[in-house]
Amino acid sequence: MSDLLWPGDHRAGGLLDDQSFLQAALELEAAWSAALVTLGIAPAGAAVSAAQLAALLPTDVLKVLGARAEASGNPVVPLVALLREGLDGEPGRWLHRGLTSQDVVDTALMRCATAPVEMLRRELLVQVRCLVDLVETHRHTPAVARTLTQHAVPTTVGLRAASWLSGVLDAHNDLTAVVLPVQLGGAAGTMAAAVELAGHLSDPVSAVAEATVQVASALGLAPSTPWHTVRTSVTRLGDAATRCTDAWGHVANDVLSAARSEVGELSEGVGGASSTMPHKANPTLSVLVRRAALTAPALCATLHAAAADATDERTAGGWHAEWSTLRVLLRRTVVAGSQTTDLLRDLVVHEDRAAELLAGADGVGAEQQAMAALAGREPAPSYLGATDAFLQAPLARAAAVLAEARA
Amino acid sequence: MSDLLWPGDHRAGGLLDDQSFLQAALELEAAWSAALVTLGIAPAGAAVSAAQLAALLPTDVLKVLGARAEASGNPVVPLVALLREGLDGEPGRWLHRGLTSQDVVDTALMRCATAPVEMLRRELLVQVRCLVDLVETHRHTPAVARTLTQHAVPTTVGLRAASWLSGVLDAHNDLTAVVLPVQLGGAAGTMAAAVELAGHLSDPVSAVAEATVQVASALGLAPSTPWHTVRTSVTRLGDAATRCTDAWGHVANDVLSAARSEVGELSEGVGGASSTMPHKANPTLSVLVRRAALTAPALCATLHAAAADATDERTAGGWHAEWSTLRVLLRRTVVAGSQTTDLLRDLVVHEDRAAELLAGADGVGAEQQAMAALAGREPAPSYLGATDAFLQAPLARAAAVLAEARA
Amino acid sequence: MSDLLWPGDHRAGGLLDDQSFLQAALELEAAWSAALVTLGIAPAGAAVSAAQLAALLPTDVLKVLGARAEASGNPVVPLVALLREGLDGEPGRWLHRGLTSQDVVDTALMRCATAPVEMLRRELLVQVRCLVDLVETHRHTPAVARTLTQHAVPTTVGLRAASWLSGVLDAHNDLTAVVLPVQLGGAAGTMAAAVELAGHLSDPVSAVAEATVQVASALGLAPSTPWHTVRTSVTRLGDAATRCTDAWGHVANDVLSAARSEVGELSEGVGGASSTMPHKANPTLSVLVRRAALTAPALCATLHAAAADATDERTAGGWHAEWSTLRVLLRRTVVAGSQTTDLLRDLVVHEDRAAELLAGADGVGAEQQAMAALAGREPAPSYLGATDAFLQAPLARAAAVLAEARA
Amino acid sequence: MSDLLWPGDHRAGGLLDDQSFLQAALELEAAWSAALVTLGIAPAGAAVSAAQLAALLPTDVLKVLGARAEASGNPVVPLVALLREGLDGEPGRWLHRGLTSQDVVDTALMRCATAPVEMLRRELLVQVRCLVDLVETHRHTPAVARTLTQHAVPTTVGLRAASWLSGVLDAHNDLTAVVLPVQLGGAAGTMAAAVELAGHLSDPVSAVAEATVQVASALGLAPSTPWHTVRTSVTRLGDAATRCTDAWGHVANDVLSAARSEVGELSEGVGGASSTMPHKANPTLSVLVRRAALTAPALCATLHAAAADATDERTAGGWHAEWSTLRVLLRRTVVAGSQTTDLLRDLVVHEDRAAELLAGADGVGAEQQAMAALAGREPAPSYLGATDAFLQAPLARAAAVLAEARA
Repeated sequence: MSDLLWPGDHRAGGLLDDQSFLQAALELEAAWSAALVTLGIAPAGAAVSAAQLAALLPTDVLKVLGARAEASGNPVVPLVALLREGLDGEPGRWLHRGLTSQDVVDTALMRCATAPVEMLRRELLVQVRCLVDLVETHRHTPAVARTLTQHAVPTTVGLRAASWLSGVLDAHNDLTAVVLPVQLGGAAGTMAAAVELAGHLSDPVSAVAEATVQVASALGLAPSTPWHTVRTSVTRLGDAATRCTDAWGHVANDVLSAARSEVGELSEGVGGASSTMPHKANPTLSVLVRRAALTAPALCATLHAAAADATDERTAGGWHAEWSTLRVLLRRTVVAGSQTTDLLRDLVVHEDRAAELLAGADGVGAEQQAMAALAGREPAPSYLGATDAFLQAPLARAAAVLAEARA
Repeated sequence: MSDLLWPGDHRAGGLLDDQSFLQAALELEAAWSAALVTLGIAPAGAAVSAAQLAALLPTDVLKVLGARAEASGNPVVPLVALLREGLDGEPGRWLHRGLTSQDVVDTALMRCATAPVEMLRRELLVQVRCLVDLVETHRHTPAVARTLTQHAVPTTVGLRAASWLSGVLDAHNDLTAVVLPVQLGGAAGTMAAAVELAGHLSDPVSAVAEATVQVASALGLAPSTPWHTVRTSVTRLGDAATRCTDAWGHVANDVLSAARSEVGELSEGVGGASSTMPHKANPTLSVLVRRAALTAPALCATLHAAAADATDERTAGGWHAEWSTLRVLLRRTVVAGSQTTDLLRDLVVHEDRAAELLAGADGVGAEQQAMAALAGREPAPSYLGATDAFLQAPLARAAAVLAEARA
Repeated sequence: MSDLLWPGDHRAGGLLDDQSFLQAALELEAAWSAALVTLGIAPAGAAVSAAQLAALLPTDVLKVLGARAEASGNPVVPLVALLREGLDGEPGRWLHRGLTSQDVVDTALMRCATAPVEMLRRELLVQVRCLVDLVETHRHTPAVARTLTQHAVPTTVGLRAASWLSGVLDAHNDLTAVVLPVQLGGAAGTMAAAVELAGHLSDPVSAVAEATVQVASALGLAPSTPWHTVRTSVTRLGDAATRCTDAWGHVANDVLSAARSEVGELSEGVGGASSTMPHKANPTLSVLVRRAALTAPALCATLHAAAADATDERTAGGWHAEWSTLRVLLRRTVVAGSQTTDLLRDLVVHEDRAAELLAGADGVGAEQQAMAALAGREPAPSYLGATDAFLQAPLARAAAVLAEARA
Repeated sequence: MSDLLWPGDHRAGGLLDDQSFLQAALELEAAWSAALVTLGIAPAGAAVSAAQLAALLPTDVLKVLGARAEASGNPVVPLVALLREGLDGEPGRWLHRGLTSQDVVDTALMRCATAPVEMLRRELLVQVRCLVDLVETHRHTPAVARTLTQHAVPTTVGLRAASWLSGVLDAHNDLTAVVLPVQLGGAAGTMAAAVELAGHLSDPVSAVAEATVQVASALGLAPSTPWHTVRTSVTRLGDAATRCTDAWGHVANDVLSAARSEVGELSEGVGGASSTMPHKANPTLSVLVRRAALTAPALCATLHAAAADATDERTAGGWHAEWSTLRVLLRRTVVAGSQTTDLLRDLVVHEDRAAELLAGADGVGAEQQAMAALAGREPAPSYLGATDAFLQAPLARAAAVLAEARA
């Protein structure tokens, strides 16, 4: 994919693109056929590999499926038809038997989501390391705190970085908790077709349950009973992605605020060029990360609205609204994550400028004067309060997360 | 474009895709160079056509620009660099002079929006015609009205279709009012560079204003002063698109409700197939239209959030959030519009079933009995009230719109 | 109403509160009874005034209705029951006859919306005047333009104010176009009950249509055929309100940016106090206006989602989602409008600081140097380009709007 | 509170209303004063109870604070001023010292959220019990499954109820994981003022940290370092609430679908009355629950947008956007939860009608025929597949949750 209208999109490579989705769909059909054979539901010759299936498809398969998907409302119906046209004998007769198109779409999307989820987990760990460095390096670097855009009291660059770290750790926590389940329910979530096909076995229902376990294992997904109309897996994934962009938006806003021409406390390692002004060095990564943070909440809300639209045994519209929304949200999150890592790694802290601004900040000592008067003492030499102590909790959380990741 | 995850996307063809955007950007650069020459701001040899510019670009230009766009936050900076590399002499020296990348992005998006807006207008007119037919054909076809899912009192299929027509006319009204302006402001909306370049003319400012008029005319856009941080043109476009999907969602919901297996008053002309159940004929177009209606409001909200984020002379993030959002919203609207037209054109009204349901509806005459008792008279033979009269207003609006379209 | 969690809410007074809603509902019932009598549908003694109806209600009527509203899903059913309990004779027999609860809820909401819409129109006009002053006063006040947070080229304070003016004029345009219609359709939008009641007249349908006209006139609303499931009036109102908050959010962001401690180009007339820092003067109005702009798009999206949920002859849920959403959106818009007026009226422009920042801005002349080199001339004395000329269009629009408002 | 425009709102009583918020703010000020004294930071006489503070306030305090809150952007500044006016001696001198208004607002909101979170947890447990009953009672009650509005294959009422149960269990899981932290950071999250006040102690920072622990304990909140710009606690709360309404929306949709006049498989225990049609029994609770599910995602998106807006040491607008949004979201969730419990408890399953519809469903056996043909066997007597087996997982989860709740 290439997207001129979402600069940085190339960082997401082929994640969740049509080709990845197709590949995941083929892997599911293959894994299902293998499970049917393994469990004695289908005859030995019925199994087919994803590679064999892929070989059956025309080179313009994405275009063909794109056009045909509409007639049945999803791309699986024409995909199965194409595959069956090309398959002779048992593989053709048994392909997709027992499944429904929602099984394939949902499982393929979950399968496609494994890569971005894993990438995001790694990206967040890199950011954690990066932020631990920033916090430790600047735990004693004074700067003026700003509340509602106005100079307030002194703080440290390290404490500000620690607030970024806390958000990133929260995101890491929620993303790590994400579970991506297989979806195998048949026409209406009863697995009736598969059970019928297993009718010659002593315990058809258990055989079908075992097939689900095998397919989940083959695809790297969690086993699950059907969730055709229970969309928690999708909304939790969306919530976790939005937790990421919330955390990164915070970082980007702070960089944008501190990189203003009049401020200059922070700057991006590599500034962005202007098409007409040779002197400009724009905080481009921050701009692009902030962009993602501005759009993620509404995408996530769409996933929730779709989940809340669940009706009957398959939702008429709400389900269909999820697919592209999830793709866009996850790709943008991956892009923003990668950009945030670059931003953090190359971030330049202008300590002198921070010190200069703090020294020149009017009234920044006023609160301390009032407190000292109340206490009946001279003001203490420093007014940095618990800035250093407040670093301990996020640093300890970071250490635990990093230790666990190494384990 | 092909999109397995948004079935029907092929109906939008190349609208607002990267290639279209690139083409529009080249057209703007060409029109600007022509205007500079025409007005004597640039020397005669400086003009260059869009075709000449296109010829300078490598075949993988979209991929190249996609990757490079990130460094400056938008694709125009690397595009201009690529073009200048290939251009010798005056055209190379003058290309893009006086403009800023926001001018190119915004103008190209507005230019790209002209086609979908025009398509939507035509589509809505076709729907108006179709709905006028439905209304007139079924103005006396009785059916049971349903409120909060329960049988209420009698109505007509024609009146229900007239409510669809009203929504479609509202959408047509707002879409027709959309104005797509050119954006030419230079680095910070002051046109200072262009005025500087025109410094040898007697009235440089007027010359630059005239250049804007010429460029707008060449691109089929409205002339405008710069709107870098006044995004009404974008939000009005988004509102109008969402007004369309609101109207179509209403139609789709009604078809889904009336096409339920237990109801069967309406059915789609061509039902959608299932991957496993041979007997199914799903109301697929309604499902897909409803899907679009579920997702448009959040996309439009993103455009508003971006507009409300306007800051300084160029917005850091809010502006960037618009581009892809607008593309997705407009493409989906075009797709849903085309699907709704098909849905309406082929819609099957099962009059017998409607009559049967009305006849069997418990309590559907209860209100009339109460009214007759209050009035002290026998119930009138019909309880269709003003159903027929209420058709006049939407039919008259429709006639006016169709007459104006023919004029 | 008093709302600790939405500071400034008191500016909206009782707009759209429960009492206002109840009053509007009573006015509708009264106007309807009067129209029935006037047109000879109901007997002479059936008319009842809103004051008479109000007198029948207990002092804790809001609490009573609040609790009872749930059983039927809206407050009209228990309200009508309460009123009928208290009314003897013809008024009691005829009250609400021919109407449905949706008629009362929708009409009362539209009636309640007339005041905020009118207030917003006036507020926007005041802002237009204020901004015209700002533009004219500062049309030659130089300042540095900022793009993506970085110093760019020179501009004027007047041009920045003109961009605010353009947004405010756009909002005024759309708010002025808002039409608030009466809703009178009876049980399922067929007006069957009213037509039945008018059965003794020569043309019952026309009589009922005339009743609608009379009721609309009495309530200051536009006549309309029923729009139970065509919610354009609601979404257009929401869009117009959001257009307002978009425009004001832009102003607020610019003030927040320019009021930063390090910038100081602008400041609010009266700064907000801190609970602990005696020196602070926060740009509180801007903060609160920005807050409204951050929340309006999602509320408006809810109105669109509700409109797109329209189904059958009364929507099960989507309709109910509108009421409180509309109240919140309109009240917040009124509050933000009033705050923006104060903000603009008292805004302090620190010309010296603006000049100082411009003088010290690195590279702000770089583009001009490049342009002059291209043109082969010395740089012009000024690089303000068309800043002055670009004021003409918004000033002319403003003049036209103000002239029309005086007419 | 009473809200005519959100029927059922009375179920939320005074949760998160202005009075509750004020009470929580006073409790925080009291707990803080107690902690300062306990730890020797303030003199012995400085402690003051919430009741003492409440006694100082005028009876119209909410109105007074509502009006004054705007000047400083939040209600804490005028509250502290009011309290100090009334307090003599040490309590007056020490009140609120070391805190900032954000500490009070955030802590009070978290404190106010403890009650609805606890109520929701209990409500979800009641629903789990109710759904376990439904699942077990109807594990063998056959019904026709519907996909995309069309009859598909047989299922059981128990399996449908099990899908509701899964969603409710997911919501319970996430709500149980919610942590509500105290917010104590002082002017800019450094606790500098409190540390200054504790300057006479051997370890001022530890003393202040201990004060935070004591305050958290007094208010029933979790201890925490400051989170002024790390809003995960708010968004997780919002996500969990939306997970609830997603689950309940699913239930409501299914009831609305199955309660349609033409279907009649399910009905609410108590139907809602119409203002004009005596025969109607509307599925009112389902309508109102669906309403909540339609509006929650956008409210939650606003919380995320606010979180992503975090900037500097206090956010200018994003923070302020949270308060009322959180109130509305939580109150609506409590209302919808309570309504869903009623809905489930009184839900009537019309087994005969379900059986009749299944028997009359065209093509509902077609898939089985195809499977049997593929398997080369006669169709099995039942086509209910794994419907019974699929109940085990949700029933086991439910049993575990109920056992833990009893423990």
